[in-house]
Amino acid sequence: MQRKSFSTMQCPIARGLEHVGEWWSILILRDAFRGLSRFDAFSESLGIAPNMLTRRLNALVEAGLLERRRYNERPPRDEYVLTQRGRDFRPVMLAMLAFGNKHFPPDDRTVQIVNTETGQEVEPLLLDPSTGRRVDGPGYQVVTTMRQDVAA
Amino acid sequence: MQRKSFSTMQCPIARGLEHVGEWWSILILRDAFRGLSRFDAFSESLGIAPNMLTRRLNALVEAGLLERRRYNERPPRDEYVLTQRGRDFRPVMLAMLAFGNKHFPPDDRTVQIVNTETGQEVEPLLLDPSTGRRVDGPGYQVVTTMRQDVAA
Repeated sequence: MQRKSFSTMQCPIARGLEHVGEWWSILILRDAFRGLSRFDAFSESLGIAPNMLTRRLNALVEAGLLERRRYNERPPRDEYVLTQRGRDFRPVMLAMLAFGNKHFPPDDRTVQIVNTETGQEVEPLLLDPSTGRRVDGPGYQVVTTMRQDVAA
Repeated sequence: MQRKSFSTMQCPIARGLEHVGEWWSILILRDAFRGLSRFDAFSESLGIAPNMLTRRLNALVEAGLLERRRYNERPPRDEYVLTQRGRDFRPVMLAMLAFGNKHFPPDDRTVQIVNTETGQEVEPLLLDPSTGRRVDGPGYQVVTTMRQDVAA
């Protein structure tokens, strides 16, 4: 990742990506949403080298998506829990889940978003809550407005 | 990115990520949604090395998110347009845009999702279309079901 180029980009997608980090970070967040919080649990789930896992966890703490909490004093042990900012990443994750399910479904299992009352699978849509219409459909656009005269 | 580990993961998020590629791929898709299709336009927008851009465009074509179309015979020139699969990535992108806007807003501009009829900014939500409720809220869960006895 060439961070220099990203940081000059003022696009909120690029900025979001820059702070979330890398694929590994997204998969760590995925596991945090599944309820994992301890180093060993992430390590086992992801099969990622310990130094890499430490680096990604630190980056997620620094970006304010995870919070470090001491759960044992002797020996000192920390766990990593989602902050509000981290929880706000969940719709991105679930949109990715729906995309992955549609276009690259796993062979050996199904991973579904389920309505826990009915047990029914849900295919979520990204909607405008005030109209109930899809924001990726007609009638919606992404609009960029400059705030000042700043060279991009 | 350590592809080996990713490909053994059967999670649709990991699989989606694996096929979409890297941050650069997401930013190329973002530009494709903005209407860019030509190499030079992507190159100018992203400030990315030509060999890297070629590699990412090829990967997106291979993954079926972009389609290569010849728009000029002499000299031969191709453009890159979104396939249906590529367009299906748009909700992921827009969810990222909303996240980035909320937590890492740009200094010098606003990038908004706008209802083109009213001109109002929209903060999209990922909803269950059959109930109108947020799938990142209570009453919804991600459930994994094994299809066969396959070692993960």
